[in-house]
Amino acid sequence: MHVNNELGTIHDIAALAAICHEHGALLHVDAAQSVGKIPLALNDWEVDLCSLTAHKICGPKGIGAIFLRRGLNVAAFMHGGEQERGVRAGTLATHQIVGMGEAYELADPQVDSPRITQLRDRLLTGLLSIDGVRQNGSPQTCIPNITNVCFPGVEGESLRLALSDIAVSAGSACNSDIPDPSYVLTSIGLSDAAANSSLRFSIGRFTTAEEIDAVVDRVTAAVDKLRALAPSAPAWCSA
Amino acid sequence: MHVNNELGTIHDIAALAAICHEHGALLHVDAAQSVGKIPLALNDWEVDLCSLTAHKICGPKGIGAIFLRRGLNVAAFMHGGEQERGVRAGTLATHQIVGMGEAYELADPQVDSPRITQLRDRLLTGLLSIDGVRQNGSPQTCIPNITNVCFPGVEGESLRLALSDIAVSAGSACNSDIPDPSYVLTSIGLSDAAANSSLRFSIGRFTTAEEIDAVVDRVTAAVDKLRALAPSAPAWCSA
Repeated sequence: MHVNNELGTIHDIAALAAICHEHGALLHVDAAQSVGKIPLALNDWEVDLCSLTAHKICGPKGIGAIFLRRGLNVAAFMHGGEQERGVRAGTLATHQIVGMGEAYELADPQVDSPRITQLRDRLLTGLLSIDGVRQNGSPQTCIPNITNVCFPGVEGESLRLALSDIAVSAGSACNSDIPDPSYVLTSIGLSDAAANSSLRFSIGRFTTAEEIDAVVDRVTAAVDKLRALAPSAPAWCSA
Repeated sequence: MHVNNELGTIHDIAALAAICHEHGALLHVDAAQSVGKIPLALNDWEVDLCSLTAHKICGPKGIGAIFLRRGLNVAAFMHGGEQERGVRAGTLATHQIVGMGEAYELADPQVDSPRITQLRDRLLTGLLSIDGVRQNGSPQTCIPNITNVCFPGVEGESLRLALSDIAVSAGSACNSDIPDPSYVLTSIGLSDAAANSSLRFSIGRFTTAEEIDAVVDRVTAAVDKLRALAPSAPAWCSA
């Protein structure tokens, strides 16, 4: 992953590619989270494969693309027809492809990132002013649009539900059916309790400062309420 | 295949399922060509899997569905996320799913088939009045919307190009990059020359009688012209 989908942490792909190639391995990068948000340096990285998607940058869901280093032969992903030179069979979804192309034309990290970074800082300042709240992951290497925050003493899923029409996530969308604590958060050293007290906030191209302020107000009120309802005194600092 | 995509021939799925099950095999039916055109009898057939698509009945390209007999466990088609109960990973393309559902709601073989059958007969009567022309496949077991016709003495690809804005196919869209004669047509006994002289005509929900008449006129003129240009006397009957 160029950028971790739960934390927003940016990985050093060039360094990872060098390690892979030193050991004769190929590197396949998932750039779904980073494309359109921070620059992609496919040539400098010297990666072998790179997956892209449209729906993370306002394009349609259900369409993606793969970068294959010239000369790399891959086995067919889907069998049947001879479309896409036999690598992926199936009638091409023209409107999806056009939609993805247009989304990529429109996305411009140089325009969007400074504005989204400002909104992220505004959001973080607001959330971190709640007692005991802290950011998960490294603030120094985090993509601007993703912020993962731990609310000690509050069950993340309860907080998510209390926010009703504000779309936040207690885990990755890919695994959100699974009630287990996020393996990403426990892998960076959070306890199960802290992982279960965490939520991911994403800022999009159309998010406004007013929306950020409303989210901070709503989260602050919901955290207060949930902590007041907690059966016992919260053990915030043990998390 | 419930219906062959090049010829329109309807297969006896119930009989094929009985043979498969007699020998302990599962039957997976591709119903892409038949859904919305003729009734699907998934329960009566007793098939194990059945593939459906949206774009053959005016729905969006790039979305399909699979019927799995209750109790049948299938290996994951795509790995990664836990979507679709782990059978097919990936962010669900909501607009595509809604579009497919709407297309299936709107499709009604009982309304469309009688009208399309009339248009097909009008098309066939017109095309078969051209000297030497004959229908490929069985007229008795053919779906109304697909007609495959052989134009002896005429190269199918040349005829297709001569028709310019009329969309006909010299083979299946899945294999149309391949200049070899259609394996479907040679499998039912056509010579390579006869297969290469054949075109598929498809009639849709929005096709009009005026369009059918225009197609017949254009094909008749194009066949006359191409036969006149042929370097030697056409060996129609040897095909």
